[in-house]
Amino acid sequence: MNLEQTFGDLLKTLRQRHNISQEKLAEKCDLHRTYISLLERGLRQPTLSTIFKIASAIDSSPSELLTELEVLLKKYQ
Amino acid sequence: MNLEQTFGDLLKTLRQRHNISQEKLAEKCDLHRTYISLLERGLRQPTLSTIFKIASAIDSSPSELLTELEVLLKKYQ
Repeated sequence: MNLEQTFGDLLKTLRQRHNISQEKLAEKCDLHRTYISLLERGLRQPTLSTIFKIASAIDSSPSELLTELEVLLKKYQ
Repeated sequence: MNLEQTFGDLLKTLRQRHNISQEKLAEKCDLHRTYISLLERGLRQPTLSTIFKIASAIDSSPSELLTELEVLLKKYQ
């Protein structure tokens, strides 16, 4: 699992935990659904502003999001 | 101050705190010096992997870097 794939897994997990579709998440983030799909599949990596948008959409903070990502990366090592 | 500019300010502050040049930071991150310069001037925003590289180069963690960024963003609001 590389960084992009791990972020994608986390994003999918968090989205499903919030019980929202890719479409709904995209709308809340002001991003395209296709981009959310690419992120979840680890085919794109988010920019700083995307990290902020996603964190806000799932009622988290950017630093909390990266803390969860760091935990997952250690687990997958 | 927008997100990119605030990140740029933080990056410059952290780099200077570590007493390293843009060249040295770029080398440690395996990035181009020009890109570091663009980031510091808020003309580019980092991707997830750049955030990880920079955090590692300054002996921090990605989540700690974003925590510092969140503090600065609140201060500049």
